[in-house]
Amino acid sequence: MTDLARRLAVSRGDEPADTVVRGGSVFCVFTHEWLDADVAIVDGVIAGIGEYDGDEIVDASGRFVVPGFVDAHMHIESVKLVVDELARLILPLGTTTIVADPHEIANVLGSDGVHWLLDACDHLQLGVYFMAPSCVPASPFESPRRPLDFGDLEALMRRKRVLGLAEMMNFPGVVHGLPSELGKLALEGAEHVDGHAPGLLGKGLQAYAAAGIRSDHECLTVEEGRERLRAGMWLLIREASMARNLEALIPLALEYGPHRIAFCTDDKDPDDVFENGHINGMVRDAVRLGATPEDALVMASINPAQWHRLWHLGAVAPGYQADLLLLPDLVGFMPDLVLKRGEPLADIPAAPVPEWVRQTVRIKPVTAADFAIPSDGSPIRAIGLIEDQVVTTCHEREPVVVEGHAVADTDADLAKIAVVERHLGTGRIGHGFVSGSGLRSGALASTVAHDAHNLVVVGMSDEDMVFAVEHLAEIGGGIAVVEAGRVVAECPLPVAGLLSDASLAEVIAQSAATNAAAHDLGWTGATPFLTMAFLALSVIPSLKITDRGLVDVDRFELVPLSLAATEA
Amino acid sequence: MTDLARRLAVSRGDEPADTVVRGGSVFCVFTHEWLDADVAIVDGVIAGIGEYDGDEIVDASGRFVVPGFVDAHMHIESVKLVVDELARLILPLGTTTIVADPHEIANVLGSDGVHWLLDACDHLQLGVYFMAPSCVPASPFESPRRPLDFGDLEALMRRKRVLGLAEMMNFPGVVHGLPSELGKLALEGAEHVDGHAPGLLGKGLQAYAAAGIRSDHECLTVEEGRERLRAGMWLLIREASMARNLEALIPLALEYGPHRIAFCTDDKDPDDVFENGHINGMVRDAVRLGATPEDALVMASINPAQWHRLWHLGAVAPGYQADLLLLPDLVGFMPDLVLKRGEPLADIPAAPVPEWVRQTVRIKPVTAADFAIPSDGSPIRAIGLIEDQVVTTCHEREPVVVEGHAVADTDADLAKIAVVERHLGTGRIGHGFVSGSGLRSGALASTVAHDAHNLVVVGMSDEDMVFAVEHLAEIGGGIAVVEAGRVVAECPLPVAGLLSDASLAEVIAQSAATNAAAHDLGWTGATPFLTMAFLALSVIPSLKITDRGLVDVDRFELVPLSLAATEA
Repeated sequence: MTDLARRLAVSRGDEPADTVVRGGSVFCVFTHEWLDADVAIVDGVIAGIGEYDGDEIVDASGRFVVPGFVDAHMHIESVKLVVDELARLILPLGTTTIVADPHEIANVLGSDGVHWLLDACDHLQLGVYFMAPSCVPASPFESPRRPLDFGDLEALMRRKRVLGLAEMMNFPGVVHGLPSELGKLALEGAEHVDGHAPGLLGKGLQAYAAAGIRSDHECLTVEEGRERLRAGMWLLIREASMARNLEALIPLALEYGPHRIAFCTDDKDPDDVFENGHINGMVRDAVRLGATPEDALVMASINPAQWHRLWHLGAVAPGYQADLLLLPDLVGFMPDLVLKRGEPLADIPAAPVPEWVRQTVRIKPVTAADFAIPSDGSPIRAIGLIEDQVVTTCHEREPVVVEGHAVADTDADLAKIAVVERHLGTGRIGHGFVSGSGLRSGALASTVAHDAHNLVVVGMSDEDMVFAVEHLAEIGGGIAVVEAGRVVAECPLPVAGLLSDASLAEVIAQSAATNAAAHDLGWTGATPFLTMAFLALSVIPSLKITDRGLVDVDRFELVPLSLAATEA
Repeated sequence: MTDLARRLAVSRGDEPADTVVRGGSVFCVFTHEWLDADVAIVDGVIAGIGEYDGDEIVDASGRFVVPGFVDAHMHIESVKLVVDELARLILPLGTTTIVADPHEIANVLGSDGVHWLLDACDHLQLGVYFMAPSCVPASPFESPRRPLDFGDLEALMRRKRVLGLAEMMNFPGVVHGLPSELGKLALEGAEHVDGHAPGLLGKGLQAYAAAGIRSDHECLTVEEGRERLRAGMWLLIREASMARNLEALIPLALEYGPHRIAFCTDDKDPDDVFENGHINGMVRDAVRLGATPEDALVMASINPAQWHRLWHLGAVAPGYQADLLLLPDLVGFMPDLVLKRGEPLADIPAAPVPEWVRQTVRIKPVTAADFAIPSDGSPIRAIGLIEDQVVTTCHEREPVVVEGHAVADTDADLAKIAVVERHLGTGRIGHGFVSGSGLRSGALASTVAHDAHNLVVVGMSDEDMVFAVEHLAEIGGGIAVVEAGRVVAECPLPVAGLLSDASLAEVIAQSAATNAAAHDLGWTGATPFLTMAFLALSVIPSLKITDRGLVDVDRFELVPLSLAATEA
């Protein structure tokens, strides 16, 4: 008997199901009803809803049976865990499927890295789909290992679990019809595209939608969300660690209903997931903010599945994959049982990580001289930090000059910053200063620096900067806090310099330790390394830094450190 | 500049649109709002909704701008018009796209006929998509020219405008897991399948849905519709000439909202369309029956488009095809302007029909002897007509015997019926009697006889039956009323024996004339030829007839005319 014939025999009641979830209140995402019925499962698929018998009976009495949650858009790398540990973290929270944009690892390892990540997810119990990273590099000022070109994208989109083209971050390029961006949209496989268009309104938004881009997860306001829904775009409501939009946008679901609205986490830190949950936390918070449990569940299950055309996911209904949660209540949305393809959560073996994925930090050896900045004392540009935000300002500062070199200075609250190219060992280093960090001594360094993930280091001492850079190169990447030639805290991220191979608990502890150590050195903001990770992202205003130098994002050009140089 | 670059320039307002629909109230299918805005159109696509300028301005002030209607499921052949005349009929009514199941022509001409119909629709202003006919023949008792096999279906589904597999009419076969039916569902391209499961409920329906069939247009009751929606199936509400389900089912749209409900016409006669409209008539009637105009419009536009994954259709929004209607009110839903791909309706040239499509009636010459039925007077089965319905009963009758032959008899209200194989000239004829037609003299004949469309003839005189059959063979098919060796009325259908090449007005006149002539001969039901067309459909209860003989549909087997023969 074929699988389908067997499934139908179970549907008809002629054969026992593998598993029957009995006596629960079953949520129908299509009619928003709760049905008192059994769910019959065979070969990982739902065969029928009704009265059924099976080899295994799961008692669901007094509980709510809902579809597994689907994260409509996220970056695996933000959780800093290898995929098996990620699965151990989010599966028990009810996220049974994610749609990931692997653009971080794409910057570090090119399409090879993406293919590896796809392979690594292939046999996970967690369902992992991908979108092909559309913007590597994020701008011409960034240096990934190599750009992803049209051929790379087409090759990726030909793979089975790749659904389309990931967030088109170069939205000005799309709106203005740049051939490079329109070329990506014309690729085979790019019929399905995610958007990314912060703040875009009016005719710009009409153009973005007219290009066929029909989702956006970058809305901050009801006005932005309303325009997107009216333009036929899906509103992916995001609750990321650094960008929490649920509260601002949930009124749209109350006004229009949940149709074409879906939840996503985008960039979530491991400790945030640990403390606040994953998609289940969004469902809980949406209900707390006034959504009905039914609407919230729909936005967390069938809606993201339908947006991504995953026709077999997101519902407890015949023919759908048996990804089910048993919820004790409709308040906390913490499942007390998760079935994935009809099976309880299993032990997930650690996936081996090949050496080429672990050895990605390739720098030309550095000395203190590499961080020396000759200066005649004329005014400089300094990156002005805004506490725990990803945007910065551009300050004009008088540098403190010692022996013909501009130096870090505690009184002026000016720290040195450098971005060291770390993929090809070119020795290219961009130099600058940051203002407002509070740092008083030592150095902080990280190989997590969006989007190209070169090595970013902030320091008060050139020697500690050298030490921190050399140390990260030695351990294959991560986060390090150095003082007086000594590592005082670190979080190794040997997998592509982005992911840990340790457990969630260790990563959270290491992460907390590096934050505490940074604070001990004087850093005032709550999230020093998240802040640093965005100082190199050359598409978010105003002044940023890459291995090629300072970037004036508003003018979208490289600018020299010295203000005098511009005037000349 | 590429088309897309030009479109985006229009979206941004940097270039004038080809056409701007100005000052109307624009319906947003996503938010159910009416927006006061212009619609900018370029290259047949909507570039933006807002304030726009263009080369051509359409004044929409005081009018409602809504998306063109999409018929989710219909058989072109039922309208009896060649496709260009069909387009002339339904485009002005606002139906801008249809999804057709060409299973009638498939029975007559095999997949060649379907490929021809696809080609014939290629350059029509009407958008025509197809589903590959899944059940040719409809049963093993029917004789199409040749069956459509797996290879035929795959070849069809590889064509661009073919969206998937058409209604799986053999629903018992699917439910019971017949390899032949599961094999069709496993074909490349059959991921998208329409359903057809009249009366199926409970576990049978769970099985049908579990097989991946996610629509049904055969619901008659709220109970049936509710079960389908709960099982994750799309409810295609049908308003066919012989099966009007809108009134019965619209309460479901009021209860659950219009989500996953779409309109279709299935089988509509030309005079019905002329009198009652097409999809626009369903919108009008739905509103009359209590639906909001917004919900009704959604079920007629974006919903059928989404069900069929026609992502560019069904909305007035940027990036969507510019299929727009201007409505003077939200009562009659009769557009006073239709734009298709941004263009007003154009004169549609008559499409030539090749000879092989016109010469499909191939019979072995017949004589009166071919219609003689030897009889010893023992009781026979007679098909019991139920006025203007497609179901029949099975009667036991004493035949009137003349010179050793059972004959038609006015007093007994028994007419002879025969189905003559007309595709391959085999000379195969099935014989029987119908009871309750009222026919008193002459003969009625038609080459429209579901699904195999062999030649069905009902008569009181063997000679008139011969004459009618020979006449239809001569003219290439159609409908004829014969009395005393003379054609008293006819509606020629030379295109595959199914479609006229005349104008709508002529077809309606001819159709009315044949009905009137049949009534003159005594036929009592309102729709003699529609009734006859279903007497050969061997999958609708209870007693039917094909060229292979009488079919007991309930027992799903051929049965002899004589009741004595069964007992023997």
